[in-house]
Amino acid sequence: MSAVLDALSAALGDAVRSDAGSRGARSHDYWAATALRSWLGRPPELPRAVVRPGSTEAMAEAVRICRAHGAPMIPYGGGSGVCGGVLGSAAAVVLDTGALAGLAALEPTDALATFGAGTNGLAAEEAVRAEGFTIGHWPQSIEWSTVGGWVATRASGQFSTAYGNVEDVLFALEAVLPDGRILRTRGTPRASAGPDLRGLLLGSEGTLGVVTEVTFSLRELPERGVRQAFHFADLEAGLEATRRVLRAGWRPPVVRLYDPRESRRHFRETCPEGRAMLIFLHEGPAGAAELEAEAVARIAAAGGGATADPAAVDAWFEHRNTVPAWETLFEQGIVADTIEVGTSWSRLGALYHAIRDAVEAVPGVLACSAHSSHAYRSGANLYFTFAVQPEAREAMPEAYAACWEAAMGAAVDHGAGIAHHHGIGRVRAPWLVEELGEPGLDVLRAVKRALDPDGLFNPGVLLPEADP
Amino acid sequence: MSAVLDALSAALGDAVRSDAGSRGARSHDYWAATALRSWLGRPPELPRAVVRPGSTEAMAEAVRICRAHGAPMIPYGGGSGVCGGVLGSAAAVVLDTGALAGLAALEPTDALATFGAGTNGLAAEEAVRAEGFTIGHWPQSIEWSTVGGWVATRASGQFSTAYGNVEDVLFALEAVLPDGRILRTRGTPRASAGPDLRGLLLGSEGTLGVVTEVTFSLRELPERGVRQAFHFADLEAGLEATRRVLRAGWRPPVVRLYDPRESRRHFRETCPEGRAMLIFLHEGPAGAAELEAEAVARIAAAGGGATADPAAVDAWFEHRNTVPAWETLFEQGIVADTIEVGTSWSRLGALYHAIRDAVEAVPGVLACSAHSSHAYRSGANLYFTFAVQPEAREAMPEAYAACWEAAMGAAVDHGAGIAHHHGIGRVRAPWLVEELGEPGLDVLRAVKRALDPDGLFNPGVLLPEADP
Repeated sequence: MSAVLDALSAALGDAVRSDAGSRGARSHDYWAATALRSWLGRPPELPRAVVRPGSTEAMAEAVRICRAHGAPMIPYGGGSGVCGGVLGSAAAVVLDTGALAGLAALEPTDALATFGAGTNGLAAEEAVRAEGFTIGHWPQSIEWSTVGGWVATRASGQFSTAYGNVEDVLFALEAVLPDGRILRTRGTPRASAGPDLRGLLLGSEGTLGVVTEVTFSLRELPERGVRQAFHFADLEAGLEATRRVLRAGWRPPVVRLYDPRESRRHFRETCPEGRAMLIFLHEGPAGAAELEAEAVARIAAAGGGATADPAAVDAWFEHRNTVPAWETLFEQGIVADTIEVGTSWSRLGALYHAIRDAVEAVPGVLACSAHSSHAYRSGANLYFTFAVQPEAREAMPEAYAACWEAAMGAAVDHGAGIAHHHGIGRVRAPWLVEELGEPGLDVLRAVKRALDPDGLFNPGVLLPEADP
Repeated sequence: MSAVLDALSAALGDAVRSDAGSRGARSHDYWAATALRSWLGRPPELPRAVVRPGSTEAMAEAVRICRAHGAPMIPYGGGSGVCGGVLGSAAAVVLDTGALAGLAALEPTDALATFGAGTNGLAAEEAVRAEGFTIGHWPQSIEWSTVGGWVATRASGQFSTAYGNVEDVLFALEAVLPDGRILRTRGTPRASAGPDLRGLLLGSEGTLGVVTEVTFSLRELPERGVRQAFHFADLEAGLEATRRVLRAGWRPPVVRLYDPRESRRHFRETCPEGRAMLIFLHEGPAGAAELEAEAVARIAAAGGGATADPAAVDAWFEHRNTVPAWETLFEQGIVADTIEVGTSWSRLGALYHAIRDAVEAVPGVLACSAHSSHAYRSGANLYFTFAVQPEAREAMPEAYAACWEAAMGAAVDHGAGIAHHHGIGRVRAPWLVEELGEPGLDVLRAVKRALDPDGLFNPGVLLPEADP
């Protein structure tokens, strides 16, 4: 045993695990590239140990011990990230939040719920639903992700168009900083008291500390839900109708527009071939959801939309949390992934074609398609799915990388945001400078050095410095 | 002339002003304490010079020159702050954004407007109204403040309950950093690409750089506006009705609740004595504003509210931008000010009484009253007004300070946020540690040192270190 393990075990006892099973399970997230390398016989290194403290104080003690020994630390939530934000290294200790789980407090008058950071997302949502509330945040990974991971990755959920992204539902947080001190932000609905410190942890991807507790500002479960679907001549027509819906001031929680390829894939029963499907869920107080649906129907019709069977929305709800198993694709020589980007309305159409064309120009690409799942007053996201099947299996990692390079390059060329909600991790780190600019990247580096001068928190992630 | 002035003049020519008039006008903001000290014959020091560059590049050059000469810099917008965020010192150079003014771009398809940071707030709003849009941000100081100042102070506007605060309408920003480099954040509707760097400038109060350009995500002017007023037995009953309105999912842009004292002061014609007035403005697409007003009327009635003449709302609209002239009060031996705080719903009633009682216990206090002007799912703000008239004029500064100490102490004791939207400046800096905690304050200090290692940007503001 190493000195750091001895010290951790002395302080934390059973919370320290060094068996191969525990270390292997937390040596990766759901990044396709890691899964592919593992399948090709090159699994990630196992971390030195996994620490799974049962209290924030114990987590802080673990951080102080690792820091004193110069051990890199990798915060770990549900392991559902898809960008390589978790990747084992033999020197590192995984800080597993799994034992910081459960509902710590629910305050019905204030509509506030506090959870341990390692609380499973669906368990958290179910805990507040039992009291008539919703967090309003439903990522596709809700069954696997943790509420702390939502914060650390700046996650989005499927109801974001009305209810916002995780930064809009987060009320307060607690985190252990790289120096082992505990940061607790004040629980106030809004403050003008310097830069909002929650913003340093939101999207930090484990590089500036480990989130240990989160408090969400809840919503009451809505009185009504109205489902609606339309199909359009093409993606651009659907985008324009969506823009007009948002512009008029309507805010359906679910607004999802699929290009003709994905419409065919997901809505074979309800969307004619070659058309772009646009589905809505309207929610709100009695009367409001219906009023919104009527207005949206008028906007859709004016934009050339044809009404589709709202059963399409039911079908989406049934399958919305489906996550692919990479290995079944690998067996066919195929590697697939998703890439989400965002930009303003006027650039979305060109961005769609540019990324699709760029990815399809990569040899071996079978398909590239997209939908838009998050809409705002001034723009929306595009969420691409690609699959590539190079001639030789050993070429799969390079083909995968080439698709990412093609998509990121096209996004940068169009001035688009390179990451809407999956984060940077390792897969996007080379392009972060395009997103932030050199001065912005240097600001982030300066903040990182200020809070983590030894660079021990999740090295290799977010910032484009080489892995240690 | 000093070396720094020589260098600034050589580089920037007429943009450098060292006449007493220019320096005096920018030696203070609208903080009552500075006005009082000036009135008592102790005006603030004049800054060494005022630099008013006409381009971001010129501002960056000014920053680089000041930095090379070790000259402190004080970013200056409209001078409408009320917390002592601008205070002259003989060593400092004022970075005046006044020549970075005007609408740089309006993109109707994307509902985006870009302004020089020194653009007057009302001029900015009028510029987008001419094209059918609204920024949706209307601070009481709109006639005097600048759009860059809104960002630097994390401002709130009177329509915030529906449209959010400045952080919710800000799309992108440009700033000159303390090292003279120019930070431009990417124009994308939402990103998960590391911590949001806009958040470092939002609320930085000139301590982390000078904002030079801002882009807002606009709204179309609403189709409908419906005004409504109710009065309640007391503030608590009005708070509960407000909470229920928010909880049901309604979002009127204007939600303002006045305690009986302020109701008497502002609504003498429409609110019976001893009652608490609650006014609403509902806005939205055709039908939506009316639907919201009907629902709110039911909630108000169920909570014991009596319908008042909606002319009350018209009266508020007429006087909403009135700002007191401190000197007319000083002549009567009175010093007055406002203090806004925020907390969750369940603590608001106790907080109201605690702050009022604490301030009224200060000898010489004539009155302390409050209203709530910004409501959220999980809480609201309270906005206190006090006036104190000590026996001797020379005791006025101490009496003023005692009122602030009483209010801040009560806020801290109740776990409330110490600053809802006016910021920290100098007046609240001693209590920032209570808001952020020691670890949080140290995080802010570390970020400050990382970006401004020589501490040249607005020393004495925000962080509770002593003025230089």
